[in-house]
Amino acid sequence: MGTSVKGLAILGSTGSIGRQTLDVVRGLRHRFRVIALAAGRNVTLLEEQAREFSPRLICHGGNEPPPGGVIAFRGAQWASLEEMAVHPEVDIVVAATSGKAGLFPTLAALRAGKAVALANKEALVMAGKLVMQAADEGSGEIRPIDSEHSAIWQCLRGEKHSDVSRIILTASGGAFRDKSLEELRRVTPEEALRHPTWRMGRKITIDSATLLNKGLEAIEAHWLFGVPFERIEVVMHRESIAHSLVEFTDGSLKAQLGLPDMRLPIQYALSYSERLPMPSLPHLDLKQVGALHFEQLDLERFPCLALALEAGHRGGTYPAVLTAADEVAVGHFLAGRIGFMEIASVIEETLDKHEPVAEPDLSEVLEADAWARKQADDLVRAKT
Amino acid sequence: MGTSVKGLAILGSTGSIGRQTLDVVRGLRHRFRVIALAAGRNVTLLEEQAREFSPRLICHGGNEPPPGGVIAFRGAQWASLEEMAVHPEVDIVVAATSGKAGLFPTLAALRAGKAVALANKEALVMAGKLVMQAADEGSGEIRPIDSEHSAIWQCLRGEKHSDVSRIILTASGGAFRDKSLEELRRVTPEEALRHPTWRMGRKITIDSATLLNKGLEAIEAHWLFGVPFERIEVVMHRESIAHSLVEFTDGSLKAQLGLPDMRLPIQYALSYSERLPMPSLPHLDLKQVGALHFEQLDLERFPCLALALEAGHRGGTYPAVLTAADEVAVGHFLAGRIGFMEIASVIEETLDKHEPVAEPDLSEVLEADAWARKQADDLVRAKT
Repeated sequence: MGTSVKGLAILGSTGSIGRQTLDVVRGLRHRFRVIALAAGRNVTLLEEQAREFSPRLICHGGNEPPPGGVIAFRGAQWASLEEMAVHPEVDIVVAATSGKAGLFPTLAALRAGKAVALANKEALVMAGKLVMQAADEGSGEIRPIDSEHSAIWQCLRGEKHSDVSRIILTASGGAFRDKSLEELRRVTPEEALRHPTWRMGRKITIDSATLLNKGLEAIEAHWLFGVPFERIEVVMHRESIAHSLVEFTDGSLKAQLGLPDMRLPIQYALSYSERLPMPSLPHLDLKQVGALHFEQLDLERFPCLALALEAGHRGGTYPAVLTAADEVAVGHFLAGRIGFMEIASVIEETLDKHEPVAEPDLSEVLEADAWARKQADDLVRAKT
Repeated sequence: MGTSVKGLAILGSTGSIGRQTLDVVRGLRHRFRVIALAAGRNVTLLEEQAREFSPRLICHGGNEPPPGGVIAFRGAQWASLEEMAVHPEVDIVVAATSGKAGLFPTLAALRAGKAVALANKEALVMAGKLVMQAADEGSGEIRPIDSEHSAIWQCLRGEKHSDVSRIILTASGGAFRDKSLEELRRVTPEEALRHPTWRMGRKITIDSATLLNKGLEAIEAHWLFGVPFERIEVVMHRESIAHSLVEFTDGSLKAQLGLPDMRLPIQYALSYSERLPMPSLPHLDLKQVGALHFEQLDLERFPCLALALEAGHRGGTYPAVLTAADEVAVGHFLAGRIGFMEIASVIEETLDKHEPVAEPDLSEVLEADAWARKQADDLVRAKT
């Protein structure tokens, strides 16, 4: 605490969350130092970031150092994601890679007692129990970056977890919240990529349109806050202003609100338990917003949400299968090979065929993931 | 803390807050014991309450024991409000009398290190600085019962006061929120007593219709949470579901929500820092509420609010004059002697004529109060 400078490892620095994290750091250079930057394919941007932030460690593309990479990045040493996650100068690991690649450094960082600012969904969805165990064992700390989980986390400040009676996740409803089932069958990838309030990556935008994303968030909330699925509710909230709510045993509710801007939850995760001024953030005026709406979600039009909640409830390897099958199905949808509503069918059929492991270890989780990818892919190929 | 039984003194037990406090105690008899009951005029109800809760101390009507009162109340000893407030078996004083009678026992209780569950507005409005000093000196604790202040207090759990950038008080808008200035001039006391969402006493219902009440709440919030008036905003919120909000320096906002039922903030003040289940409270379903609206308040139609904020901002004896003049003016309005919009005129003229004391002691506060009552009364008599 206090005003010591915290070292950051930003895994996924060229993605949406990574870029916004660096934007937050730009405003708080006296508080944070970028020790490590890791990115996937966007080497040009990674080089730019390396020039600006002079990290000590750098990684791109995979787990093997590229020939000549060290020179390209002006003296930064190549390191793997896991090496970054446990580096002694790193205090906070921003886990913002997408996909299961985020799982390993997250586990390593938590076991090493680091704070993990977690944007990667797969870690908690695929291996929630293992991640929470790693945090317990290593005294690591998970700080959610998702606006919904940040909201719940903020509402829980100073409260006892045992006093929570319900978590209410809000959902913008995605790009297609007002489309009929018939219309949904005919939507194109281009339409699906236009999200009403949040600007995000492609896969997550589709997951937001199917509402699968909201189901994944419910699974994450289950693990993060130890709340059973019966007490997690998803409510449609068009304005994306109330980022989520907590109901307590006495009937009182708390909500966290703000304009839809990821820099707020990112900064909160970095500066926690301090709140730091954020002058660049536009000010929320509720009078200008006028009204906040809350509506029932139609699970018939959004079967992915029901599938995700069901997979979360069943537990074991089911959530890993869910997210793997979804990734494959979304890929095929974006490539134009299946329709929007078939994303759910592919996931459902894959879940149906799965033989679950109740308390999987990491290798069993990864096996389930690989099995589901192949299974989902086979299903699509058979259809087309 | 823990599960020890807390002793309660309920000052104003036959009023709206007092009755609802006893209702809360009925559900939590293993946690609270009623040590003292005090009421004004409703002796029949006080006797009933005494039969049910067997208090050790009782008071009605004033500061002198009535002849024979001891027998009527089945062995309960007569005591003054101040004696009740400092009694060794009393842990929590519920200050729910109306008017300035609540000030003295509040000060006494705080100096004696008690927790004061505060519903009486006059204590903080008339003598905010003295009340906060008494709490400091005696290590007493103020726990607000008003739904708005309870909301802010709940939002501040686990937060630093220095991180608060703004307090947003919500106002239902009172009985006349949609009436034009012209219509407001002609409203009757009967119309003014019909409040859209809260059921309260007569004076407070009129104060709610003029929005003076909201100004008093701003003054209370100023003292309770140490926030300057420039950073207290009042917003109209028709549904009375979001009971108030806090904005923090990082731009994040928190709101506390619930159905309009005073038993929730009452129980919270009694059980703090614990939250206890409240099965009798109907459950808030935001999907059923549908929408929460936030609108600008029209200070032209509600000049009492502007007067109150101005008096709070000026400080010293002004707030005491404000509330005294209001009490007199509301009495005359209820008696049909002045019109609804004249309540503000009487208050304004009284404030204008006042020669303030900047840092008043208790006797100067009481002098200002007495002066304002006479002044306001003279103004009305001169008009009618």
